[in-house]
Amino acid sequence: MQKVETTFGPVLIGQEALDGLNDWLKHAEPTLSRVFVLVDENTHEHCLPTFCAALPSLPPVEILEIPSGEESKSLEMVTSLLEALQEHRADRNSLLLSLGGGVVTDLGGLVASLYMRGIRHVVVPTSLLGMVDASIGGKTGVNLAGIKNSIGTFSPAEGVYCYPPFLDTLPEKEVLSGLAEMLKHALLMGESALSSWEALSSTGNEEFALALVESVQCKARFVNRDPSDHLGIRAALNMGHTVGHALESVLLSTGLTHGEAVAAGLWIESLLAEQVAGLPSSTGKRIRSSIDQRYKRLPRVDFDLLWKKMHRDKKNQSEQVTFVLLHALGQVPILYPVGRSLVLDAVEKYGT
Amino acid sequence: MQKVETTFGPVLIGQEALDGLNDWLKHAEPTLSRVFVLVDENTHEHCLPTFCAALPSLPPVEILEIPSGEESKSLEMVTSLLEALQEHRADRNSLLLSLGGGVVTDLGGLVASLYMRGIRHVVVPTSLLGMVDASIGGKTGVNLAGIKNSIGTFSPAEGVYCYPPFLDTLPEKEVLSGLAEMLKHALLMGESALSSWEALSSTGNEEFALALVESVQCKARFVNRDPSDHLGIRAALNMGHTVGHALESVLLSTGLTHGEAVAAGLWIESLLAEQVAGLPSSTGKRIRSSIDQRYKRLPRVDFDLLWKKMHRDKKNQSEQVTFVLLHALGQVPILYPVGRSLVLDAVEKYGT
Repeated sequence: MQKVETTFGPVLIGQEALDGLNDWLKHAEPTLSRVFVLVDENTHEHCLPTFCAALPSLPPVEILEIPSGEESKSLEMVTSLLEALQEHRADRNSLLLSLGGGVVTDLGGLVASLYMRGIRHVVVPTSLLGMVDASIGGKTGVNLAGIKNSIGTFSPAEGVYCYPPFLDTLPEKEVLSGLAEMLKHALLMGESALSSWEALSSTGNEEFALALVESVQCKARFVNRDPSDHLGIRAALNMGHTVGHALESVLLSTGLTHGEAVAAGLWIESLLAEQVAGLPSSTGKRIRSSIDQRYKRLPRVDFDLLWKKMHRDKKNQSEQVTFVLLHALGQVPILYPVGRSLVLDAVEKYGT
Repeated sequence: MQKVETTFGPVLIGQEALDGLNDWLKHAEPTLSRVFVLVDENTHEHCLPTFCAALPSLPPVEILEIPSGEESKSLEMVTSLLEALQEHRADRNSLLLSLGGGVVTDLGGLVASLYMRGIRHVVVPTSLLGMVDASIGGKTGVNLAGIKNSIGTFSPAEGVYCYPPFLDTLPEKEVLSGLAEMLKHALLMGESALSSWEALSSTGNEEFALALVESVQCKARFVNRDPSDHLGIRAALNMGHTVGHALESVLLSTGLTHGEAVAAGLWIESLLAEQVAGLPSSTGKRIRSSIDQRYKRLPRVDFDLLWKKMHRDKKNQSEQVTFVLLHALGQVPILYPVGRSLVLDAVEKYGT
């Protein structure tokens, strides 16, 4: 089991992660009043039985189930979960265990941080996206009126336990979603990380386990140097996301995953990086070709709508659209404001 | 102007407080994108004109108005304010100025801490309760299904500016509400503070200005030693509040103020303190007589309902009802679990 320390608590990764959680529960149990487990219908069916079987120290729990999917990341769902906790007489020493993908853990984190101004929270991500991204770094959040993660808190979980066998329950589409964030981390780490990413096949082998740990370590490095995301360091992690979030918002109804949108975002932003940030065109081509080998192109969208959505992305502090652009593999990307016509060109080259 | 430092930012108190805010705005202005002012209909009418006139450095603002009264402290209101901020394209460098009593500042603080995971927030309390209590200590919050402040965050404001002339606009009932929290602080400070409190008359004189500063300093001492309210030190500030919150919840529809409920709570809990914590009966009698000189007794309530509400108070970590009881003036009160019959006796002696 690998342990990665972050300013938002430790992340434990490996086959023994649930044993580690069981040990933690054994020690924490005398200080806990009630335990709640937040799941969606998928993790209820596919992960909860394994989870409970692996945790003999788990006291009796109350299960809170939300519908899977991005629509659950809403203030209405926050309200109904807070009401559920209150109805079940949760108190300050209650523990919420979030067992699920990014939707479950983002929502669970926000609810745990608000109930009585903060109850205990432990995260068990079950999706690849959750393990390498959503559950690392203390960001919680829900969407508001089409703006992703517009509302939330910075709130550490007491621990994040990543148990890779949960990945075996994922549909291929969900694996691809997480792989896009792993690609982003690989670009931040450098050439050899990109080569490893290109060679990844099954989620079950040793190469994958290693890539998982390195990906978490990469995110932790940026998070630890800028916990509250005010120094601009953590902004590096938004690479691919200005376009990605906008695509995700426009194409929400098509069942697009976050990672598919980010992959398209990295593709399009690599062109901008060549033109604005001086990324060598050979590197840009390699990034786009790596993406094309795993991901189908997304359907076409109306550019005016996409441009409008990019404006509303929350790292834009005024009317300008700012992109996080790489100038070389393994280097820290930099913020650049970019005008409409360059972005339009890049989006048209992608074909969306 | 007096400055009290807290772990949740500085509190500035005095006739020059708005000048101090103006200076702050002058320096902050280049880093601010949009400025929002949160008011209720009363502070809109009675305080906003003075506020704007005293702040030549205030850039153009967007006014957000909520209905006055405890009903506005709801998750629905949080949602609609977050939506309003988003509609007005607030970004991370927006500033929210909360100008009002505890309802406005508790709600404003929660909204500011959630929007984009935290925008800038400055508090200008206009009620006595706001100045000596609600705006000090970083607690934000709303009520849920009848439980006071059940949902919230710990979130510092960049500054709290207390301008005592705003107190002249308050109805007597609101002054009495704040005086109850000042009494609680006086009991924590000791005999001479209690004597000063007993002698307070107008809110406009020098004795009052001094008492105001000392009351803020008293709260700050407890808050600074236990910012996140996990060490039990800050629990001292809940003196009078186990009964007070329960009364407030049961009598909400009668237009009862928070402080009137707390005064009754301090009255009833002083009897418990004599019986459980060893408070000298002469001190208990003096506290009750001081309260009776300013406050009318509250109407009778059903004890079973009151007892049930006390159970749900969030400092009770299990099925027991815990009270914060004083053993001597100026000493730190201690938590005691108390059984139903003793509490019933005390409530009956009060007559509610």
